[in-house]
Amino acid sequence: METHANTLIETSPSVKVRPGFMKALVFKGPNEIGLEERPIPKAGPGQAVIRISLTTICGTDVHIVKGEYPVRNGLVIGHEAVGTIHELGAGLSGYKTGDRVLVGAITPCGQCNACLGGNLSQCGGVMGGWKLGNTMDGVQAEYALIPNAQANMALIPEELNDEKVILLADIASTGFSASESAQVKIGDSVAIFAEGPIGLCATAGAKLRGAGQIFAVDSNPVRLEQAMKMGADHAINIGQQDPVAEILKLTGGRGVDVAIEALGRAETFENALRVLRPGGTLSSLGVYSGKLTIPLEPFAAGLGDHKIVTTLCPGGKERMRRLMELVLHQRVDLTPLITHRYKLDEIVEAYSLFSQQKDGVLKVAIEVA
Amino acid sequence: METHANTLIETSPSVKVRPGFMKALVFKGPNEIGLEERPIPKAGPGQAVIRISLTTICGTDVHIVKGEYPVRNGLVIGHEAVGTIHELGAGLSGYKTGDRVLVGAITPCGQCNACLGGNLSQCGGVMGGWKLGNTMDGVQAEYALIPNAQANMALIPEELNDEKVILLADIASTGFSASESAQVKIGDSVAIFAEGPIGLCATAGAKLRGAGQIFAVDSNPVRLEQAMKMGADHAINIGQQDPVAEILKLTGGRGVDVAIEALGRAETFENALRVLRPGGTLSSLGVYSGKLTIPLEPFAAGLGDHKIVTTLCPGGKERMRRLMELVLHQRVDLTPLITHRYKLDEIVEAYSLFSQQKDGVLKVAIEVA
Amino acid sequence: METHANTLIETSPSVKVRPGFMKALVFKGPNEIGLEERPIPKAGPGQAVIRISLTTICGTDVHIVKGEYPVRNGLVIGHEAVGTIHELGAGLSGYKTGDRVLVGAITPCGQCNACLGGNLSQCGGVMGGWKLGNTMDGVQAEYALIPNAQANMALIPEELNDEKVILLADIASTGFSASESAQVKIGDSVAIFAEGPIGLCATAGAKLRGAGQIFAVDSNPVRLEQAMKMGADHAINIGQQDPVAEILKLTGGRGVDVAIEALGRAETFENALRVLRPGGTLSSLGVYSGKLTIPLEPFAAGLGDHKIVTTLCPGGKERMRRLMELVLHQRVDLTPLITHRYKLDEIVEAYSLFSQQKDGVLKVAIEVA
Amino acid sequence: METHANTLIETSPSVKVRPGFMKALVFKGPNEIGLEERPIPKAGPGQAVIRISLTTICGTDVHIVKGEYPVRNGLVIGHEAVGTIHELGAGLSGYKTGDRVLVGAITPCGQCNACLGGNLSQCGGVMGGWKLGNTMDGVQAEYALIPNAQANMALIPEELNDEKVILLADIASTGFSASESAQVKIGDSVAIFAEGPIGLCATAGAKLRGAGQIFAVDSNPVRLEQAMKMGADHAINIGQQDPVAEILKLTGGRGVDVAIEALGRAETFENALRVLRPGGTLSSLGVYSGKLTIPLEPFAAGLGDHKIVTTLCPGGKERMRRLMELVLHQRVDLTPLITHRYKLDEIVEAYSLFSQQKDGVLKVAIEVA
Repeated sequence: METHANTLIETSPSVKVRPGFMKALVFKGPNEIGLEERPIPKAGPGQAVIRISLTTICGTDVHIVKGEYPVRNGLVIGHEAVGTIHELGAGLSGYKTGDRVLVGAITPCGQCNACLGGNLSQCGGVMGGWKLGNTMDGVQAEYALIPNAQANMALIPEELNDEKVILLADIASTGFSASESAQVKIGDSVAIFAEGPIGLCATAGAKLRGAGQIFAVDSNPVRLEQAMKMGADHAINIGQQDPVAEILKLTGGRGVDVAIEALGRAETFENALRVLRPGGTLSSLGVYSGKLTIPLEPFAAGLGDHKIVTTLCPGGKERMRRLMELVLHQRVDLTPLITHRYKLDEIVEAYSLFSQQKDGVLKVAIEVA
Repeated sequence: METHANTLIETSPSVKVRPGFMKALVFKGPNEIGLEERPIPKAGPGQAVIRISLTTICGTDVHIVKGEYPVRNGLVIGHEAVGTIHELGAGLSGYKTGDRVLVGAITPCGQCNACLGGNLSQCGGVMGGWKLGNTMDGVQAEYALIPNAQANMALIPEELNDEKVILLADIASTGFSASESAQVKIGDSVAIFAEGPIGLCATAGAKLRGAGQIFAVDSNPVRLEQAMKMGADHAINIGQQDPVAEILKLTGGRGVDVAIEALGRAETFENALRVLRPGGTLSSLGVYSGKLTIPLEPFAAGLGDHKIVTTLCPGGKERMRRLMELVLHQRVDLTPLITHRYKLDEIVEAYSLFSQQKDGVLKVAIEVA
Repeated sequence: METHANTLIETSPSVKVRPGFMKALVFKGPNEIGLEERPIPKAGPGQAVIRISLTTICGTDVHIVKGEYPVRNGLVIGHEAVGTIHELGAGLSGYKTGDRVLVGAITPCGQCNACLGGNLSQCGGVMGGWKLGNTMDGVQAEYALIPNAQANMALIPEELNDEKVILLADIASTGFSASESAQVKIGDSVAIFAEGPIGLCATAGAKLRGAGQIFAVDSNPVRLEQAMKMGADHAINIGQQDPVAEILKLTGGRGVDVAIEALGRAETFENALRVLRPGGTLSSLGVYSGKLTIPLEPFAAGLGDHKIVTTLCPGGKERMRRLMELVLHQRVDLTPLITHRYKLDEIVEAYSLFSQQKDGVLKVAIEVA
Repeated sequence: METHANTLIETSPSVKVRPGFMKALVFKGPNEIGLEERPIPKAGPGQAVIRISLTTICGTDVHIVKGEYPVRNGLVIGHEAVGTIHELGAGLSGYKTGDRVLVGAITPCGQCNACLGGNLSQCGGVMGGWKLGNTMDGVQAEYALIPNAQANMALIPEELNDEKVILLADIASTGFSASESAQVKIGDSVAIFAEGPIGLCATAGAKLRGAGQIFAVDSNPVRLEQAMKMGADHAINIGQQDPVAEILKLTGGRGVDVAIEALGRAETFENALRVLRPGGTLSSLGVYSGKLTIPLEPFAAGLGDHKIVTTLCPGGKERMRRLMELVLHQRVDLTPLITHRYKLDEIVEAYSLFSQQKDGVLKVAIEVA
């Protein structure tokens, strides 16, 4: 859910809200967003209302704002949030008002055929696990209604502040999943194509899974430098080097066990295929906007025992609990990815910076409460 | 390694051979094959010479003959064989002259990095496991030299005649692997696109793995009828029905868990993607001759948790031993696929029939001794 | 959840019930059961009430009745049921009153950490997925309250009558899972120790997964005969043969890839270990009542690369849907296991027969409505 | 292959050797070892002779010396070695005399049914992959004959000295395999029972696989301290704490996802079972000398969905290549485990120290050339 996009966004005035109401960022149509007053939601059975303390902007939100990913006008957007429980609907247990929780970007029900079959992200249909800021109001607001709340709120250990965990809801879960879906083994070589926020998380994830050698590919020296800090062993600047030739050279002609596509472009997809060893796996995280072509030479006309796996952000509170363990025990620190901080009242400005990728921005933190 | 091809092949006269020599089918250049006299090979260390009793023609052989898959002029072709051990090279154990064996179409060394890493078919490089009739002389001959013989000759149980096992060397191993690579689960729905010999084996393989519902897709009513006998529950004739719409209808809109491409064409590849449920797997067996396109709608722009897996015929004598168990204990009978029988002297005629797909041919048996 | 037990059960008179009430089989203390009048349950949020049409008795129920597995006095027992939806609680969707459904023996919530981590049977704690007839009133009654109903009621295709599907709720799901947990591969050899109802289902399951050779071990010739009908290739009567020696002989000294323990006794557990090849897997389904010993010789002092896997009945409606596909498409027929039929009013008599294993009983069907 | 043993070993005088001969440590009978003059071996087909530069002593060697693991009198022992290629037998390729290589402790043939089925350690029969210093002369000598040399010699990158890689041949490959066999997932909690050399490697391996929280259990504070350096988060001294109670407390009653037994005692085996969560995995590396008992309470009478997996050191040069990548790219450093260094002439003294576990010894390096 991330892109490198440039867009224009109309600003909107800050708003004052009445009791029982809240501020929320609303998508009003392509390239038109603004803060509005909305009623604080009420929790139905199985739902919860969260008082948001921290949220962030995802590349997918930029897609939405630009009109490239369709949502209804009037939708509150955003799907990454930390907050405290404001209201609990009927049927929830194990939570109490005031608990600080990480909310899932994906909020599967856990009870449909897809979920029970292990496809939490595809709950109820294609990409159906993604509800917040997509098919229902999202979390770039003071309060948000959480569906299937029993399954999708993870209690945050006291030791971890909001910034330590906010990125686990989406980009870290997604980025780490690239190596999990590809079943990276101890000692594997892994190449990551594009080192934006998700690519950087994928880099950290490859290291977490025990990759023996990691190649970071990007055109931006600052991102490549950050990739080296997240676990990469080699930085390959595509402005200066042919990444395919370079990776083949550095692996002694062998190719990599796993290539991760973290951008969503046909060219990186093809290059990722070209650096695979026979029997290797392309793990694709990007959101593509055009048709993809599988070039046959590296694919060995279909007989190279290759695999291509795609993964939408894995969800559920158990996943979030596990990822928080990694942060709690110092296995990974994602806070360097938060390069800028704004108040909710400044969120349109934050969108402007983020969508234009100015000032070395990786992720912005939106402080709500 | 199979196609539906039409080609012209020049005939060649039958030959008489001197002592120490043998007859062998030789590729002389595109669309030019013929029987020739060749010296009986000698076994070096780790090798064996087999007196061939039965062989067959693969769709890949037709590709070779037509010049679509490059091999050197003068090569003896063919990679599927049953025979008896004529000579054992140094370093072999557990075999004796006269033993009847099934020879692997893929003959991995078992000792290189690819083999030791579990990629037997990619022994020593891309598709490097395939040697016979590709990078060294093959088995459409009276005798053949078998490389890495310790790893690639499986003793045949007395109860099983040559025809019972010949197809296990390549097309059954390949066809069954489609469901194995896709990790078909008990109760899964599986669609097979194209019911040629490999597709029919893939159909049998899906049933062997416990598929709960199998869809056979082809344009040929005879092949569809055979597919129903091999385990399919629904026959979909693409001349009469849109296979995508039909499969979606028959699964109540759900799509299939696994789709198998067994033809090697862009259209079937795309249709196979279109019938997948979210999180489903496309298992590709075909050899493609043009670029492939991944249509983004069914691929959900990369976020549908789909997988694409490709498999070259899995090799090694342990694999052949296991597959013979399935035949020995009546789990599967592949002999109905052998529709025509020829003597080695008639092999050019057999190629003509097979390459033109005349007379309802599925597989031809070439009786050598 | 099955045993071969002999027990005495006190009979109870048939009862007449008032409007709003129902008949239910109640555990009153060790060896004391009887039909009683109980109020028809009411569905709370997320729950449903089912009008039971068919139920059965499980070996675990006999354990309960004998006092070997502890439940509270006054509990309605039974966990296998087919029925129609009588009442739907708040929050359910996709169901309507009158729908005929298969109810899960295991009724996971789908929303706790265990469930979201893929351990549906261990929902909320050790064996916590098993609620009906264990920690809450069960289904040997005219009506039953189903917890987490959204996740645990599977619509039954019209073509399948109650007897066709009733055994899928528990013993078939459990029996098949033995080969699934052991990841049986096409062509594997599998030995099943004990051919009671679960062992017979495990036999069918091994065949469904593509086992190449199946050994059935029991002391009862009738059960062995049934095992041969369910897919076994060899019947080994432990009254006449040493099963370990016989299996090693029949596999040429190799041992089996997978051994399934379906009884719950130390002796069968040890014998199952003794027939494993190096790297083989013991898949254990039995409920043990004493400590188990791992004999070190077959276990190779821990260095034989062996695995031991245990499985509690996998649950959830997606699982039941998949298993019904297998029945619908004639992959397996479990109705031969139903050897006796009773009315609910005769259930105590049915318990008597079943617990004493008289008259060749395998499973009894209790017709409720 | 490791123990904590105390034993007496008779010393032997240093020996001078004639041209064509070498010094080798010979097992002469229980508690009797000494250096002897032996002819330098000759390489047959498929074999190589290595000039040893560095070797070490394994706990299994101590078992052999004490007569607890049976080998023939007169055997040269030892199975962990680095050296240079002295002679190459017929049929080898990709190597030349003088190449520096890591030799596998396990030397599978790659061509038998077990190897081709993926069970390299069980090559040719139970534990049959272990040949050196077991069924044929080993490597505690100036030269050693390597069987199946094509598959079992891994070229060492120039950047890595002998001490950097020597432990990868056995204890690191074994120790890491504990988490690989148990399929540890990112964020899992892992408990390691016994922090000897293999336990310490298992600790490093759990971290490499992405374990989120690691518990080290031992009675020795020095080893626990080392475990913390290798990646453990909690050190539990069994002299001061009940490890089962402590681990359950630290996991909030949840138990661990994976418990690793690295000692080979019944008590640690049972404790490892007792700390598992439902559905957890016990990964067993120890060599047991008595029967094992599975206590039923933590095993939930067989219905806890638990797994027990055992692993003998995984072998083959591809494995060694991958592990060297981890060292080359600073993922792990095992040299702190080498606490003592001896010359080959002093090897009996090294055995004395190592077998008595004096002076804080973890591993001894035996410098040969």
